[in-house]
Amino acid sequence: METSFNIPNLGKPEIKSPLNLSTVKGDKIFNFVEDEESLVYDLSLKEYERCLNTGSDPLCLEVAGPRESIFFNPEETSAAIVTCGGLCPGINNVIRGTVMALYYFYKVRKIYGIPFGFEGLNPEKGHEFRVLNPDEVKEIHQFGGTVLGSSRGAQSVEVMVDTLVEKKIDILFAIGGDGTLKGANAIATEINKRGLKIAVVGIPKTIDNDIDLIDKSFGFETAFDIASPILRDAHNEATGANKGVAIVKLMGRDSGFIAASAALAMPVVNFVLVPEMNFELYGEGGFLEVLDQRLKNKGHAVIVVAEGAGQHLFEQKEKVKDASGNIQHQDIGILLKDVINKEFKGELGGVKYIDPSYIIRSAPANSSDSIYCSRLAYHAVHGAMAGKTMFVAGERNGRFVYLPIDAVTQKRKKINLEGEFWFSVLQSTGQPFQMP
Amino acid sequence: METSFNIPNLGKPEIKSPLNLSTVKGDKIFNFVEDEESLVYDLSLKEYERCLNTGSDPLCLEVAGPRESIFFNPEETSAAIVTCGGLCPGINNVIRGTVMALYYFYKVRKIYGIPFGFEGLNPEKGHEFRVLNPDEVKEIHQFGGTVLGSSRGAQSVEVMVDTLVEKKIDILFAIGGDGTLKGANAIATEINKRGLKIAVVGIPKTIDNDIDLIDKSFGFETAFDIASPILRDAHNEATGANKGVAIVKLMGRDSGFIAASAALAMPVVNFVLVPEMNFELYGEGGFLEVLDQRLKNKGHAVIVVAEGAGQHLFEQKEKVKDASGNIQHQDIGILLKDVINKEFKGELGGVKYIDPSYIIRSAPANSSDSIYCSRLAYHAVHGAMAGKTMFVAGERNGRFVYLPIDAVTQKRKKINLEGEFWFSVLQSTGQPFQMP
Amino acid sequence: METSFNIPNLGKPEIKSPLNLSTVKGDKIFNFVEDEESLVYDLSLKEYERCLNTGSDPLCLEVAGPRESIFFNPEETSAAIVTCGGLCPGINNVIRGTVMALYYFYKVRKIYGIPFGFEGLNPEKGHEFRVLNPDEVKEIHQFGGTVLGSSRGAQSVEVMVDTLVEKKIDILFAIGGDGTLKGANAIATEINKRGLKIAVVGIPKTIDNDIDLIDKSFGFETAFDIASPILRDAHNEATGANKGVAIVKLMGRDSGFIAASAALAMPVVNFVLVPEMNFELYGEGGFLEVLDQRLKNKGHAVIVVAEGAGQHLFEQKEKVKDASGNIQHQDIGILLKDVINKEFKGELGGVKYIDPSYIIRSAPANSSDSIYCSRLAYHAVHGAMAGKTMFVAGERNGRFVYLPIDAVTQKRKKINLEGEFWFSVLQSTGQPFQMP
Amino acid sequence: METSFNIPNLGKPEIKSPLNLSTVKGDKIFNFVEDEESLVYDLSLKEYERCLNTGSDPLCLEVAGPRESIFFNPEETSAAIVTCGGLCPGINNVIRGTVMALYYFYKVRKIYGIPFGFEGLNPEKGHEFRVLNPDEVKEIHQFGGTVLGSSRGAQSVEVMVDTLVEKKIDILFAIGGDGTLKGANAIATEINKRGLKIAVVGIPKTIDNDIDLIDKSFGFETAFDIASPILRDAHNEATGANKGVAIVKLMGRDSGFIAASAALAMPVVNFVLVPEMNFELYGEGGFLEVLDQRLKNKGHAVIVVAEGAGQHLFEQKEKVKDASGNIQHQDIGILLKDVINKEFKGELGGVKYIDPSYIIRSAPANSSDSIYCSRLAYHAVHGAMAGKTMFVAGERNGRFVYLPIDAVTQKRKKINLEGEFWFSVLQSTGQPFQMP
Repeated sequence: METSFNIPNLGKPEIKSPLNLSTVKGDKIFNFVEDEESLVYDLSLKEYERCLNTGSDPLCLEVAGPRESIFFNPEETSAAIVTCGGLCPGINNVIRGTVMALYYFYKVRKIYGIPFGFEGLNPEKGHEFRVLNPDEVKEIHQFGGTVLGSSRGAQSVEVMVDTLVEKKIDILFAIGGDGTLKGANAIATEINKRGLKIAVVGIPKTIDNDIDLIDKSFGFETAFDIASPILRDAHNEATGANKGVAIVKLMGRDSGFIAASAALAMPVVNFVLVPEMNFELYGEGGFLEVLDQRLKNKGHAVIVVAEGAGQHLFEQKEKVKDASGNIQHQDIGILLKDVINKEFKGELGGVKYIDPSYIIRSAPANSSDSIYCSRLAYHAVHGAMAGKTMFVAGERNGRFVYLPIDAVTQKRKKINLEGEFWFSVLQSTGQPFQMP
Repeated sequence: METSFNIPNLGKPEIKSPLNLSTVKGDKIFNFVEDEESLVYDLSLKEYERCLNTGSDPLCLEVAGPRESIFFNPEETSAAIVTCGGLCPGINNVIRGTVMALYYFYKVRKIYGIPFGFEGLNPEKGHEFRVLNPDEVKEIHQFGGTVLGSSRGAQSVEVMVDTLVEKKIDILFAIGGDGTLKGANAIATEINKRGLKIAVVGIPKTIDNDIDLIDKSFGFETAFDIASPILRDAHNEATGANKGVAIVKLMGRDSGFIAASAALAMPVVNFVLVPEMNFELYGEGGFLEVLDQRLKNKGHAVIVVAEGAGQHLFEQKEKVKDASGNIQHQDIGILLKDVINKEFKGELGGVKYIDPSYIIRSAPANSSDSIYCSRLAYHAVHGAMAGKTMFVAGERNGRFVYLPIDAVTQKRKKINLEGEFWFSVLQSTGQPFQMP
Repeated sequence: METSFNIPNLGKPEIKSPLNLSTVKGDKIFNFVEDEESLVYDLSLKEYERCLNTGSDPLCLEVAGPRESIFFNPEETSAAIVTCGGLCPGINNVIRGTVMALYYFYKVRKIYGIPFGFEGLNPEKGHEFRVLNPDEVKEIHQFGGTVLGSSRGAQSVEVMVDTLVEKKIDILFAIGGDGTLKGANAIATEINKRGLKIAVVGIPKTIDNDIDLIDKSFGFETAFDIASPILRDAHNEATGANKGVAIVKLMGRDSGFIAASAALAMPVVNFVLVPEMNFELYGEGGFLEVLDQRLKNKGHAVIVVAEGAGQHLFEQKEKVKDASGNIQHQDIGILLKDVINKEFKGELGGVKYIDPSYIIRSAPANSSDSIYCSRLAYHAVHGAMAGKTMFVAGERNGRFVYLPIDAVTQKRKKINLEGEFWFSVLQSTGQPFQMP
Repeated sequence: METSFNIPNLGKPEIKSPLNLSTVKGDKIFNFVEDEESLVYDLSLKEYERCLNTGSDPLCLEVAGPRESIFFNPEETSAAIVTCGGLCPGINNVIRGTVMALYYFYKVRKIYGIPFGFEGLNPEKGHEFRVLNPDEVKEIHQFGGTVLGSSRGAQSVEVMVDTLVEKKIDILFAIGGDGTLKGANAIATEINKRGLKIAVVGIPKTIDNDIDLIDKSFGFETAFDIASPILRDAHNEATGANKGVAIVKLMGRDSGFIAASAALAMPVVNFVLVPEMNFELYGEGGFLEVLDQRLKNKGHAVIVVAEGAGQHLFEQKEKVKDASGNIQHQDIGILLKDVINKEFKGELGGVKYIDPSYIIRSAPANSSDSIYCSRLAYHAVHGAMAGKTMFVAGERNGRFVYLPIDAVTQKRKKINLEGEFWFSVLQSTGQPFQMP
């Protein structure tokens, strides 16, 4: 039976792994993972019955972990790590884990950090590769940011592959979001075209938690953990005034996981607005009406809005102009602040607007993320040493698996408005299940 | 097709739920959960194929959530909450969530807090039930401990059921560990024997995370989150002296999840000792030998030990007496401190022993646990209102499910020494895979 | 010898204090404070010599604390607390301390909270006084904000005094900043004019720490304590990009104490810009030139700017328009961001702008402030019960003293650019001692 | 006029300071400090008048800060830093500040770290000096502990001076407590005896805050800041049980500043026991009686005890044996726990004993301490470069001053039981002013 989320391999792994693991169950020592140890993707009994009735194979996921035979000879292997895009808690933890796993588990001694994202693979930019080893990285998990530096935007795929070849890199670990993963895939495709044996591994990084098929991305738990006391204090701002309103804008360009989770974690929030939902400001059942009701009943309101929410409000230029008189705004937080200030003119004790985005994304990883980052990094290294390529490591249904990069970049993960998670958010805030 | 983890029901739910949910997919409103929406318990392809091949039904789990028809008429329903056993972060969050769900979702108006655990159900103890409502509980999620008070130990089951009857309680929510859940089951059995219609719901509370079948218990993430900076600083104690050793004892009577997770979260730990593993102090490959090696190579060591680890060392009384000269010790942390002090007499820069247990268990829940507690409480309420009894709410494979109390109290969950989690701990600490 | 900072008194205190204190030194029990226990205001030897040579009396401060004879009969006394202006960490601690001191030390039983600032003294606003007692306030020290609510702006002094009279208030505690203290003085003046015996006590509240003559105001230590990790993470933003710049705007309308203290507490800051200093953006030695130098040498820069800094840059409208093309900006943080973006166009890895003001001011008090708030409140109560009026309690040269309200509202405290504190900031940042 | 706390000098400072400071008031640039800028030591009007009346000179303190003429030629100067005794938050901050000040202000290039305390000055121990520079220390302020390592106990003064001579050290910065400062003075005395020109500077380090004459020592504010939430949670332990008692032992061998401050910062504490006070356990008005009263009235109690409190109870061996049956105990926390358990046998919901000492002392400095450490270090360097020796830098009456080492080591600072600070603690806890 073949797995459905197939991971490409650079070739047959024929080198004995230097890891001193077991192949026997019951000896209390971890066993090498076999490629056949798949997990079903869909847990519903309905899907099982479909398979049973139709005789079809269930969609399966490849279990992550160390393989008994590996592709790369550790002594000769050279690995490089690149971090791209915006900051996210945990990047340094992933760098640290990757270096530690390469160095201590597989005895790889040539490990490099590529400075400032994909820019660092473009010789024109003049950045030097940085030598990495345990001494260099042993304390970086305590710091936010990325010790390698980052950058946004694309570089020529050919130029980047040229650099990898020139630097004799065998494995490229690319830590980044959707764009970075697509870039990594393009690099791997070019590598493949040239018939090279360079593994390209993606480690999905998105503070928004919107990488598809994966339970959570690293940094996400830290994000709502840091947002949580900010909401607690926003509540102080709202209640500290007569008819006070506090608006907190949180990250979430296409999906509202941070906003929703933070609101659930700190249950003083009265409204969560996310990109997945429709809502109108005006009219019957519109946001302003329910807010008015809330202020009349309770005397204050705390609103959490994801940065990508309500973008349709900016397209209706006439309306928005009416409301805020300021059509150039593309910031939903500021739009809300302006609209509320205008609509409730003189009635409110103030509208406090808080945008903590940079504070959140540059913070060090919390404990959960720290654990997740180490394990992600270890699994990425195990997969890479086995010669797997064009894959990401991630958690699905609570287990670490490998997934093809192109499987997770097809579309972004979104909150299921009919799912249990969003329902728990609605239960917590008490906001209407739907606004028109 | 019947689920295998069957939840008993007090009777047919025939009352229309007051929740304004949908029964139509695609309208972006949460749908009532149907009892048939089961999930397979075992994700491995191997098990799936076994079922497909043999035509046997896979073991399934009942999905948690609100049912369209409920058993209890909210207007007449009376619910009580009891918290038992030691403190654990998140108890107040669960109390709050339960009260909020009863009050706002189902409009239940008679909600009571039972003071000081099962003692509060024994009239001889003289504790009065406490009236609970949203105003009483709205801010308690910010505090550790339990606002209801707790106690340990058993009370007469008959007396407790008498009290429930006298107080006209329809639903009992029991928040507690293994013993409490068994007690709750005994209460439910007595209720059943008397032919009463009182639902008994367990909400598993164990900071050790050792309730079987459940991904995690509430408070556990907070536990290692709080332990994490303590380990960071224990490292300062170890490195602040020439050949310094720091020992941190963490909770974990039968399983070492907190010790292992904290060590993974703060990767400055060199040895984790858990109840699941065997290890000897003396002899070749024994702990003292590997510690000696570590001190010679690196000049310091940080040891994390779960309270239940190494209990076999106390049975070998002769040996222990030799080692520590203090046979009455049953505390593995103090034993280790004494043995190390004795064995390395004069060579060490000090052995610092840290026992932060009370500091950890009395802290407020962190964000992850806060979310988990709210959702757990909501699901417990939904199940109870539907007339389910003798069940717990919990997360399994990342989904909220209901499980029979007696299924989760058969045995305690332990770290799988051959599993990926323990392997990642070993990778992080660098300690030997096995000690003799 | 008479004190120079005289505190008015409502009349001769003739009632024996209910406090069970001592009047004997050496019995290890606190002694009542005598009005004569003054402290010299100026510690310099130079001032001593001036007094010696000229025979003049040194300027003195009245020591705060309980008096043996008090003015108000506790049994009949009624006290009210009002909180005005913006939030500041510690307000609830001061409310709590005041209630506790009135209730437990003096057995005052009529204690009221005035809702929403001076608005609450205007019957037209329709706010009801709130009854305060230990049960109501015992846990509020753990929360930011003000449980009484606040408001800005003036109310009619006559109306407010009418309300105090109607509500039979004997002591008014006004927690607020410069404007509030002036308002309190106006109320006291009107009270005096009417020949009433109502004590008016100010408790200076300014997160900016700019109340004159007082070592520090409550909330200030919390402010830079919370700002400190934000600066740490801003540093991650700056170093996470090639030639990255992070700008953090901190509170400080007229004085830069928070910005300077936070920069000193988290020594990753390269430039601190405060209202007290002059600086130009352009030209030789101007800020942009030194920033350019820094970026060339070090590759990144962290800038902390107090909100009131550089306001002269807005008056030179032509210049500013040239620079940012956006003359309506009055926000120095945004001005800096725009100017830097424009001047270094394309050369920078990004300019990250962070404004955490609401996050800081709405937070709970840290430990130092918590201690300070309790002691402040106790002293305010002791002074009020003794019949003192038109005074504030505060710390000066490390001792708690009473000062006349009009002495501390003459002008705002500012950073002494020739003083040791500012010098230590310059030493820490390495920025030029002066910019043109 | 001569200062009374005279600081010895190695010789006339004749080298022009490289600091680009001003000597003109009013130019908004910090001025060099002149040795004559003294401050009176005693602020009381009484003392001031005594001096004025008798014409005697007031006792004065030398103002800390950079001098226009310095003694050491920076280019040739070599400085070494040693850290001794137990950990304390802020040691790394002081190391960092010292290195930064030497390197950047004075351009001293030969800076060494002495490993493992005074041991590092004993060649027999085999520790190598460590080269320090800004790159080595720039991030250490974020970590607790000491990057140099520490040790306890004395080394031969002659040997240590031999090492300083051999290593050509010109300035020794000794960061440590009472014993270390006395050791530093002994080293300086030996240096003087040999006619050497080596400056010895003490930076007082005592988490107990018991260095005489100095407002506070670094690490102390962090200590009660970290203790504060531990007390909050101890309160949860006490209230989480029926008649629950929580005992927290905090540092304070000879003085109770940490215990008292933490209790004041987190006002949930009912009893503070410090070394300065007398109290008996038994008999009328004894601690057990007042505790019993408290438990009857309120149902729980939180006790904070300084480690040095109640030591007299151990001398009365008979009595203690009666009480606890365990005379070998010298730990007041455990004594209290045992006595309370015995006296209230069966009546209590548990006595929880918490000893967080290592957790507190190994933590990183909080913001206030971070500021204090930098300024202390800067002042130590300024004094040393000016050729001052046998002095400490510290804050007194809110100003940084230099004091002779032997002035601050005469006796330990203690809480004044008749002073305002202790009175505020008593007011906060509500405990009796005196126990027999």
